[in-house]
Amino acid sequence: MSDFTDALERLRPVDPAAAAEAAAHHDRLTKPQGSLGRIEAMGIQLAAIAGTNPPPLPTPAAVAVFAGDHGVLDEGVSPWPQEVTGQMVANFSGGGAAVNVLARHVGAIVIVVDVGVAAVLPDARGLVQAKVRAGTGNLLKEPAMTIDEAREALDIGVQTAAALVARGSRCLLTGDMGIGNTTPSAALIAAFTGRPAREVTGRGTGIDDERWARKVEVVEGALARAAADGLAGIGGAPGERDALAILASLGGLEIAALAGYLVGAAAARVPVIVDGVIGQAAAVVAAALAPDVVGYLVAGHRSAEPGSAAALDHLGLEPLLDLSLRLGEGTGACLALPVLQASAKILHEMATFEEAGVTSEHD
Amino acid sequence: MSDFTDALERLRPVDPAAAAEAAAHHDRLTKPQGSLGRIEAMGIQLAAIAGTNPPPLPTPAAVAVFAGDHGVLDEGVSPWPQEVTGQMVANFSGGGAAVNVLARHVGAIVIVVDVGVAAVLPDARGLVQAKVRAGTGNLLKEPAMTIDEAREALDIGVQTAAALVARGSRCLLTGDMGIGNTTPSAALIAAFTGRPAREVTGRGTGIDDERWARKVEVVEGALARAAADGLAGIGGAPGERDALAILASLGGLEIAALAGYLVGAAAARVPVIVDGVIGQAAAVVAAALAPDVVGYLVAGHRSAEPGSAAALDHLGLEPLLDLSLRLGEGTGACLALPVLQASAKILHEMATFEEAGVTSEHD
Repeated sequence: MSDFTDALERLRPVDPAAAAEAAAHHDRLTKPQGSLGRIEAMGIQLAAIAGTNPPPLPTPAAVAVFAGDHGVLDEGVSPWPQEVTGQMVANFSGGGAAVNVLARHVGAIVIVVDVGVAAVLPDARGLVQAKVRAGTGNLLKEPAMTIDEAREALDIGVQTAAALVARGSRCLLTGDMGIGNTTPSAALIAAFTGRPAREVTGRGTGIDDERWARKVEVVEGALARAAADGLAGIGGAPGERDALAILASLGGLEIAALAGYLVGAAAARVPVIVDGVIGQAAAVVAAALAPDVVGYLVAGHRSAEPGSAAALDHLGLEPLLDLSLRLGEGTGACLALPVLQASAKILHEMATFEEAGVTSEHD
Repeated sequence: MSDFTDALERLRPVDPAAAAEAAAHHDRLTKPQGSLGRIEAMGIQLAAIAGTNPPPLPTPAAVAVFAGDHGVLDEGVSPWPQEVTGQMVANFSGGGAAVNVLARHVGAIVIVVDVGVAAVLPDARGLVQAKVRAGTGNLLKEPAMTIDEAREALDIGVQTAAALVARGSRCLLTGDMGIGNTTPSAALIAAFTGRPAREVTGRGTGIDDERWARKVEVVEGALARAAADGLAGIGGAPGERDALAILASLGGLEIAALAGYLVGAAAARVPVIVDGVIGQAAAVVAAALAPDVVGYLVAGHRSAEPGSAAALDHLGLEPLLDLSLRLGEGTGACLALPVLQASAKILHEMATFEEAGVTSEHD
């Protein structure tokens, strides 16, 4: 049995009884009922994930940055050259990238997992060498990867989550690096949500109108190619049995690994903060493969990419932050971590009306 | 010369040259230009405040919770009894309130300043006794306070900011406690923005339709009473010379002190994170008294109170968070602090393209 299949079997829905306990607990704390808004909702979700109230603090935390390259870069979807993916992996190892700064700031560790970078990367601090293949196929013209490669990437994601939890992490964050990866993300989000390509295709790192129009054409073409390849569900709501095939046809290796990582975290009953549109595309895939995973996901932020809102809407998730970020790497997930941790501490540390001798509005 | 007048004289506009340096610095860092969205904007603001790039880290931080009672509570604007203000001050001293939990979480200290609680409060840890009077007058029927009392509260706010900065704080957060204080906040926001009472009056701790309708009537009545008292600017854009009179007529003692605190922080060139609608009402007052103060303000969050959006719009501030909070105390400011700190660390710690050997999109 593969690690991914094993994780699917271990995955359980979150616990509504613990959620109800946390909600009742909130109403005894020295504040007007509901006045902590989303912080209350997050505390309730953490209780549901752990199956106990107050929930364990989501700390220590770890960001796994999955890196891969994309054959579709040949179509001119990004102004950045492919070599930047590997250069940025070196930057992560050196601690100088945005995700390093933000992870240090919030006390999270960073690991980088090469599941599909085109270049051969030298061994480096925090780098896990797990290349499935050296970049995907050009999804406009051919499947991005084989079903077996997608399965392998899913397994690596599950293994990464399991290893981090075994080392003590109690909150996992998604991260990604891959020049061109907003294109497969848009294609996957379009395929799984049924939205038209132009609604979910964005400007990535900041492309101009002409390049954006080309990117929309590429996403449309990829969806048509996948449909011609006989994939049911393209352009409509897919059946679960098709989800793996759609992932292989349109995905990135880092997106497939992220989908496995989400399922692995959920199987271990650990919350996962999903970063921007790449992680959200992986979440859409993971939810198609295993609907119960959604209860374990915290949407870190709404990215500036239009596919982000479409994916969150499809998943029924409301983002914690909305800071117009469009960098990826896990940066938005890092910024959301202290907010999530705060929601658990409220349930651990706040005084009740009775304890504090405060008159409640209902006294 | 009063401390407030002195602070007004020391207040300088933020520095556009340092802001430009920070913006140029951002463009050399290993990320697509502008891809950190609001984080970049906050880093630029911090540089402008300090007059240098990279800006000093906004740490250590302190929350000052100004507490006061409100004569308008006689009009049935809140279901909570007045005694809760003093009880909550004791809860703050005991460390069990939401602001204590969140301030500990983000590494900020909490002090409480009694500028106008109706009850005599026993000395307690972290409590500054600075009562101007034991609660305001009922603003529906009479001025909330005299001009001299408003001046005294402004001075206390300035002194509080100065004392915290002298003790080493490099970021100040606003906090408030006062049963009934969303009513004077709504009246002040209406008076200074010209918006109708029903657009800026909210449900505070969560009141029902009937009580809300009464609250709108009270705010409308207070504005009419103040206008009848001869205050120019009520219902329109006030002149600066009227701002102090409007504050005295409609304000709360904690709101007046908060306005002084904002000016005091700005005079010391220290950023201030403004919590919800009470702090925002104080910011609207402070901006009328000293327009340059706005450059030093960071809007921590958009509260669920409708006056919050109106005040932020009037000030031209975009909130960092939007978590449907409506608790006050400084809770939203605490949650925003790590985000603000992150924006400074990005400018301190991120590698440039040159340093990291990463190809830029413009190479």
